[in-house]
Amino acid sequence: MTGVKNITACALIIGNEVLSGRTADANLNWLALRLTEKGIRLAEARVLPDVEEVIIDAVNECREKYTYVFTTGGIGPTHDDITALCIAKAFGTTLERNAEIVRLLEERIGKDKMNEARLKMADVPVGGSLIPNPVSGVPGFRIGNVFVMAGVPSIMRGMFEGIAGELEEGARMLSRSVIAFLPEGTIADGLNAIQERHPATEIGSYPFRKDGVFGCSLVTRTTDKDELDAAVEEIREMIRDLGATPVEENEIDPEDLPAG
Amino acid sequence: MTGVKNITACALIIGNEVLSGRTADANLNWLALRLTEKGIRLAEARVLPDVEEVIIDAVNECREKYTYVFTTGGIGPTHDDITALCIAKAFGTTLERNAEIVRLLEERIGKDKMNEARLKMADVPVGGSLIPNPVSGVPGFRIGNVFVMAGVPSIMRGMFEGIAGELEEGARMLSRSVIAFLPEGTIADGLNAIQERHPATEIGSYPFRKDGVFGCSLVTRTTDKDELDAAVEEIREMIRDLGATPVEENEIDPEDLPAG
Repeated sequence: MTGVKNITACALIIGNEVLSGRTADANLNWLALRLTEKGIRLAEARVLPDVEEVIIDAVNECREKYTYVFTTGGIGPTHDDITALCIAKAFGTTLERNAEIVRLLEERIGKDKMNEARLKMADVPVGGSLIPNPVSGVPGFRIGNVFVMAGVPSIMRGMFEGIAGELEEGARMLSRSVIAFLPEGTIADGLNAIQERHPATEIGSYPFRKDGVFGCSLVTRTTDKDELDAAVEEIREMIRDLGATPVEENEIDPEDLPAG
Repeated sequence: MTGVKNITACALIIGNEVLSGRTADANLNWLALRLTEKGIRLAEARVLPDVEEVIIDAVNECREKYTYVFTTGGIGPTHDDITALCIAKAFGTTLERNAEIVRLLEERIGKDKMNEARLKMADVPVGGSLIPNPVSGVPGFRIGNVFVMAGVPSIMRGMFEGIAGELEEGARMLSRSVIAFLPEGTIADGLNAIQERHPATEIGSYPFRKDGVFGCSLVTRTTDKDELDAAVEEIREMIRDLGATPVEENEIDPEDLPAG
């Protein structure tokens, strides 16, 4: 791991509708997978209400703590869309109307249909740069290490891909997953010893029950290929020593993966 | 709203596997809906890694800020299950082996199969009380205003229902949802005026596109039935004034509900 920069990120999912349960967030898992692919470690995620001081505090705390902050939600034309204003306040600046977005909006919607609410979507914090929106036109923006994206999953994804190239990448996390058809409590002591012998790896155990059989998925993650293979070999040996057959696989139905 | 206590909650979803994207969280939305039903406002949610100081800090911050804290994940027998230890440290106490859980484990697994890893699941912070687990036996626990539950969705749900009766309930949030087949930018100015006339309601606008038609779902929420009906009537009238027909409905496909 020496010499490899630790690049971290935080996701801020903004919206009362997620906290009330009305809408199930559909962005976090996608973002987590994409960041992992780029060697960026998603270190935390928060779901926040549409409350100005809560958003400002979280943005300021997280942009200090992590390499990148990604927000989703709250950038539309209605009164409950307060993300841009909160980001401006968090950076101690104000919003300014962006001529390029006004032009985009007029092109898209028609000059005669422009109103104050729609123009609000053209307001970007001073110092922000635009994030293209390949789906519905109205851009997001970046200011400092904070990327402000839409909450609509298809739009969020399009925006992320537009800025993905700007992100500094870390060492890519390598991962191997071995399934043991043994109860978690049977492998836990041996697994703990393996984790202690391989402190540079992150070994997770995710129990499941499939067709009445108990098992666990033992996931080893590290940026070092040799370390990965060495730890996995010890896990496979431990499973064999306990009288079972290790099965390696890349994916298992998440429903079968209780977090324990 | 006078006289009604504001009961709040925070959810802490604990587990590297959610942040790496390996597992999609399946607890937050369910918990949000159940809390909303009980008049408890889920004010924030965080996804945290299996890192001791991060969990301790979040628990201590959130148990001060909110009426209740619910954690999911990290209470199994393996080395990466550190939630109980973190909660003990957050409360400035230690873990003690709970005789009742030891008995449950011995009954369930067999005395001959007990080992140090399995006994770890019997460790509860001093001062904690058990949360029954109707699914797989091993209990969670409550200490102060913090409820520690499993990450496996079926087990988490069973545990929550076991303690749901202990929770202080707030005024139940009433909700009505009106669909306008109009672009969000068209209704935004009128909607803002309605929100300003009804400050005790929380009006959210969630745009969608269905079969090529733009629309938005306008959700009014408040604990006051008269306020609710008054605000909704104004929303319906606004939609009619804009030449469209308001459609009231309880549910719409979440895929069509971009958070805007």
